[in-house]
Amino acid sequence: MNAANPAVTSPVGTHHLRARRLGVDTQYEAVVFMHKECPVCRSEGFTAHNRILLRAGERRVIATLYQITGDLIAHDEAALSESAWQRLGLRDGGTITVTHPEPLESLSRVRSRIYGNELSEAEFRAIVTDIVDGKYSDIHLSSFITAAATRPLDQKEVLALTKAMVDVGDRLSWNADVVVDKHSVGGLPGNRTTPIIVPIVAALGLTMPKTSSRAITSPAGTADTMETMAPVDLDTADIHRVVEQEGGCIAWGGAVKLSPADDILIRIERALDIDTEGQMIASVLSKKIAAGSTHLVLDIPVGPTAKVRSAESAEALSAGLIAVANAFGIRASVSIGDGFQPIGRGIGPALEANDVLAVLQGAPDAPRDLRERAITLAGVLLELGEQAANGQGQAMAAQALDDGRAWTKFQRICEAQGGMRRPPKSTHRRPLMAERAGRVDTFDNRKIAKLAKLAGAPDDKAAGVELHVKLGDPVSSGQPLCTVHAEAPGELAYALDYASTNPGIIGIGER
Amino acid sequence: MNAANPAVTSPVGTHHLRARRLGVDTQYEAVVFMHKECPVCRSEGFTAHNRILLRAGERRVIATLYQITGDLIAHDEAALSESAWQRLGLRDGGTITVTHPEPLESLSRVRSRIYGNELSEAEFRAIVTDIVDGKYSDIHLSSFITAAATRPLDQKEVLALTKAMVDVGDRLSWNADVVVDKHSVGGLPGNRTTPIIVPIVAALGLTMPKTSSRAITSPAGTADTMETMAPVDLDTADIHRVVEQEGGCIAWGGAVKLSPADDILIRIERALDIDTEGQMIASVLSKKIAAGSTHLVLDIPVGPTAKVRSAESAEALSAGLIAVANAFGIRASVSIGDGFQPIGRGIGPALEANDVLAVLQGAPDAPRDLRERAITLAGVLLELGEQAANGQGQAMAAQALDDGRAWTKFQRICEAQGGMRRPPKSTHRRPLMAERAGRVDTFDNRKIAKLAKLAGAPDDKAAGVELHVKLGDPVSSGQPLCTVHAEAPGELAYALDYASTNPGIIGIGER
Repeated sequence: MNAANPAVTSPVGTHHLRARRLGVDTQYEAVVFMHKECPVCRSEGFTAHNRILLRAGERRVIATLYQITGDLIAHDEAALSESAWQRLGLRDGGTITVTHPEPLESLSRVRSRIYGNELSEAEFRAIVTDIVDGKYSDIHLSSFITAAATRPLDQKEVLALTKAMVDVGDRLSWNADVVVDKHSVGGLPGNRTTPIIVPIVAALGLTMPKTSSRAITSPAGTADTMETMAPVDLDTADIHRVVEQEGGCIAWGGAVKLSPADDILIRIERALDIDTEGQMIASVLSKKIAAGSTHLVLDIPVGPTAKVRSAESAEALSAGLIAVANAFGIRASVSIGDGFQPIGRGIGPALEANDVLAVLQGAPDAPRDLRERAITLAGVLLELGEQAANGQGQAMAAQALDDGRAWTKFQRICEAQGGMRRPPKSTHRRPLMAERAGRVDTFDNRKIAKLAKLAGAPDDKAAGVELHVKLGDPVSSGQPLCTVHAEAPGELAYALDYASTNPGIIGIGER
Repeated sequence: MNAANPAVTSPVGTHHLRARRLGVDTQYEAVVFMHKECPVCRSEGFTAHNRILLRAGERRVIATLYQITGDLIAHDEAALSESAWQRLGLRDGGTITVTHPEPLESLSRVRSRIYGNELSEAEFRAIVTDIVDGKYSDIHLSSFITAAATRPLDQKEVLALTKAMVDVGDRLSWNADVVVDKHSVGGLPGNRTTPIIVPIVAALGLTMPKTSSRAITSPAGTADTMETMAPVDLDTADIHRVVEQEGGCIAWGGAVKLSPADDILIRIERALDIDTEGQMIASVLSKKIAAGSTHLVLDIPVGPTAKVRSAESAEALSAGLIAVANAFGIRASVSIGDGFQPIGRGIGPALEANDVLAVLQGAPDAPRDLRERAITLAGVLLELGEQAANGQGQAMAAQALDDGRAWTKFQRICEAQGGMRRPPKSTHRRPLMAERAGRVDTFDNRKIAKLAKLAGAPDDKAAGVELHVKLGDPVSSGQPLCTVHAEAPGELAYALDYASTNPGIIGIGER
């Protein structure tokens, strides 16, 4: 079958419109506003909520169309959200072309997975490439994530997805045989060991170019916490410079293009509050592989309200992570920790940073559990990386903390990343009191995390929860158990409202 | 644990803003634009893309927030999309209050399903209630649909979902013991029998208050096609009036609130191009139950590129549909038909309407296959509804078509629905020719549907594909096989581009 007139089969005609910067912040979403009576809308058949391909020179972005019926914009104008304006690299007076985007062929691969088929590496690559090119709407992204969560990815698929995620991004390479890295499986509030481990092992001669994510479903990611102490938006050149100079860095992974699909998927996972094993492995390892890591310690806290709830689940996750890591030539070791209560006192970016600083500075009231966990994990890395003899890693790590080498190294890293700064303080605070005397016998990590999120974390850096008690502590009636920190009265009230209707966030048992 | 100051635990403070109608068409999505420096944004910690609860009097809507950085709106204004403005029933000079929405508790039920648990009726009701209240974002909706598609709903869950979908909407009731209804499982282009069946059975004394959907993944739904001949946006009172007067109607189901969740879910299913068995059953039957139907015929076309591809799948779907229908007291019968090629000639709203009119008018060139299929299904209904003796239904239906009673009834129904009108004609057309001589041996229904959609159907009513050949027809090289109709040159070019790169839409074999 052929079309009657070959000339008509060329790609759809392009239309030029004057680009206008509307001054609308839509976050990640590219939005274009065109007049409903605009000739392009009529000739192309565009209607509101269509996805439209915008081009300016070599740059392209797919945007959601909203249509203006009033006199806000002219008929030959295309008004752009900040995200669209910046991705197209536009300047005032510029023009753009608008067309239908190509059909989203890779979506048939997502449907195939929904209908029960496994996906190959090529199929995952097609999906991930389109995701990174911004071709997937929220509906498509959510479907891909949910399909891969509802019938979990098998190991072959996890390998294939990991490889695809690595391949669509940049990769770092290092002049070192041993490049160490660390990942904590989330779900345990306050488990902020990275900014302590990096300066310890870097001070002791290892190379640790750490890139971290922002929060997925938690009140803070390492990048959120670190950002309260130093800039973390380092590009590839910055990371190389800092690591060559100091042996380590603590950067946000999203500012470099290491596994860029991961950052897009994380936003959806966060909205859904899901983070399944296969996706977790692909997410973690695609970043590590792209970062050029050779040796990896995985921190898995286990507890009834941690992300991993039983020793069996921890074993299964460890096995999956290690198998996939080995398939990519990475030596990995797992450290299973106590996940029954939060680590440290603070939950939320700035509150966690305070704990990190106390441990690094050797403050007398520094949280012991955070210090110990950091020493354990740093010890594993020192032994994995053959910087310490077997059984000597922890002592070496503790020594570097105690004699101030880690603190000095941390300050040097912060300076190299753009300058050290003080974590912000919250403007609104309120303690939550024990309703009766007794002994602290449970922490609901999920509810504590939710409380911190309702208070504004991680978007509000100073927001979160500050704990005043640990498991087993005796308390009297009316004694403050924790303090809620917020940056706005609305969010403080919202968090307190949640606390008052959700007993058992911190459980009090018999003395 | 209790909050220190009980006064602060009251719901978050409400903030009043001047409502402004911005004149932005965002379709279904409610959008609110607030200034980035607006005191409410600061005190509540709102950031772009947050979902915000807007209230005006008793009316509520959850809107997506975009933030304005320029001088487009004032600091004490909230500018609203048309959808938000209308759902709040606002007038110029009105004010609205803005707050955080309550936490979306039912999302934990979606997660539970993702993690492998079945959902109960109460759990489905919680989800469906929140969906109908507009609390689910596209991310949430897509996850719910994908979770229920990837590990298919079992029969108990389908029953529970169906019940929940019925319960959150309105229900129609009728002064008739027998209320007949019909549903065709989609996927077969041009299968537009409803506007023929309704006048046949209504002319013969049955009550058939037919509500139809718009297209899900196809180039036209019955409501789209009917709308080219008469208004279909009837409210409950209109439907009662038309049915009491004429015995039948052909209305869009979405204009009344029968299973309103279905219309929201259909939009997402359309974007994903998925439509699974359990969801199909819940979607179809929730509408039928809410419409007060007592007897139902189900039309399932089977063919290699139809939605249902084998006799076994058709049996399974029939069994599921009949079992769930019976559980709700509906007598149902299934008619399995030939799904190897499109029915009739037209694919697309107006082109299908032309076929319908030709059959009703007894035009000499009326498509025989469409006429026969309509007679078969009408015959089943006449027997199910005890208007015809067993084995006599089809003859009775044919008679009503041949003697003009059905055509008269159709015109009366159109007049009662608001006035009969002519289907629009396309402005841009181009034939596709046979590349070689031979005999037509295959139709790829999916590719034909896609071709019609790329040409603009169903949004552009006159767009679509008009077939000139049937299976087995001999063709010569260069003979037109079909004509692509469009309302815009861009879409015509786009469809032709697809045709030129996708051979085998209509397959030509040896003579």
